[in-house]
Amino acid sequence: MPRQITAYSNPLVKHARDLRDRRRRREAGQFLAEGLRILSEAQEAGRLPRTLFFADVSHPRAAALVQAVEAAGGEAIETTADILSKLSGKDNPQAIVGLFDDFGRSLDSLDRHAASIWLVAERLRDPGNLGTILRTGDAVGAGGLILLDECVDPFSVEAVRASMGALFTVPVVRASADAFLVWLRAGPGTLVGLSLRTTHDYRAADYPSPTFLLTGNEAQGLPEALEAACDIRVKLPMLGKADSLNAAVATAVMAYEVLARQQA
Amino acid sequence: MPRQITAYSNPLVKHARDLRDRRRRREAGQFLAEGLRILSEAQEAGRLPRTLFFADVSHPRAAALVQAVEAAGGEAIETTADILSKLSGKDNPQAIVGLFDDFGRSLDSLDRHAASIWLVAERLRDPGNLGTILRTGDAVGAGGLILLDECVDPFSVEAVRASMGALFTVPVVRASADAFLVWLRAGPGTLVGLSLRTTHDYRAADYPSPTFLLTGNEAQGLPEALEAACDIRVKLPMLGKADSLNAAVATAVMAYEVLARQQA
Repeated sequence: MPRQITAYSNPLVKHARDLRDRRRRREAGQFLAEGLRILSEAQEAGRLPRTLFFADVSHPRAAALVQAVEAAGGEAIETTADILSKLSGKDNPQAIVGLFDDFGRSLDSLDRHAASIWLVAERLRDPGNLGTILRTGDAVGAGGLILLDECVDPFSVEAVRASMGALFTVPVVRASADAFLVWLRAGPGTLVGLSLRTTHDYRAADYPSPTFLLTGNEAQGLPEALEAACDIRVKLPMLGKADSLNAAVATAVMAYEVLARQQA
Repeated sequence: MPRQITAYSNPLVKHARDLRDRRRRREAGQFLAEGLRILSEAQEAGRLPRTLFFADVSHPRAAALVQAVEAAGGEAIETTADILSKLSGKDNPQAIVGLFDDFGRSLDSLDRHAASIWLVAERLRDPGNLGTILRTGDAVGAGGLILLDECVDPFSVEAVRASMGALFTVPVVRASADAFLVWLRAGPGTLVGLSLRTTHDYRAADYPSPTFLLTGNEAQGLPEALEAACDIRVKLPMLGKADSLNAAVATAVMAYEVLARQQA
């Protein structure tokens, strides 16, 4: 049976609230995900929250989640809309919030032959972009997303929200650029960098399997050394005045081109 | 010479602050844009703010903006970081904020022959998506972005910010879906709808000029009636579990495909 918590001062509520802070997430090895859609996506991917906070189980999928969490030995906690709002940081909170164990993976756990496309992002700053790239990764069947150097935290509430659940279906690895290059060169793999400094059109390149598609920081693009380490550098046409695309958009246009070319 | 304002209670500060509210923007026919990059983009596109608030003109482009605004009969106002923070709603505000006259356009002002690609969005809800789509529109040389029915306001601070200045380079029109269809059918133009209900792969379609690329609401996609009004319905491959892409991402993948096919 779910227990009830209605006090802000409850230590478990306070602990969950603290997970909105990156350092606390790292210390605890836990994170939050909100909303029935995302939690259902997680469940389908075999990931259940350790603790589930809910205010309303009138939806059958919410009731099923409560049952599944309890059957797996987790805890389901009935609480108030006010406390859910405190957990999610939104005025109009989702009616259900899950507390998950972090499942960051290491490079060595990846099987590069498991997919033809891999996404790699370097110093990505925006959690919305990270979540959007995960969603694209899910759509193109990417083997995973590899985050290089100091990227935004994929387990932040904003990134999880923007991923619409793809955080649970697309493996995420964090590594230094150096460690990634060592791992990459220990086996087959073509590293493709998106660059404004090349004239090589993205439609004219070949993308053998597995292709690792590398996107740089939103404002600065790729550092020269990392761009130089790429096997291919390509650019997207820019007909306008701004000479820039959103990083998640550029990644998606490239990923769909690689997918189409590999399937042709 | 710029005048100085350092009081929150100043009526002009209050008026500018009010423009963060959609209704106030509509009443005043004005909006705010922040940051040197976006204001420079605006200037290059021939748009100067009616009023410019700044705290720091140490950057030569900031000094040039102040001069240009005053030369054009506008007003440049030196103010404090605190007031800029109040205007932008951010703790770490941009050092420069412009107050612009709204330049929404009507369908009849568009020349459909001026471009081969046009972007159309229906009930778009997220200002970040709207700004990102404008940026993509700039990059692919779209003739404009046509917003159907109740879309998020393209002149909201968040949309302007996400557009990175493309709001000033890509014409934006707001219209009802009905009015748009009447206008569209009065001349040449292929309406292409992104849909999950079709099996027609986006790489297998033809995109004659001018193509109007229609994207639906983030959560619901296109309403059936509007989908039925399309000349072509296409879908992007979805290999993953989520069966959805971010709306701005889907628009960009399609827009780049149309561009490549039209140039081939």
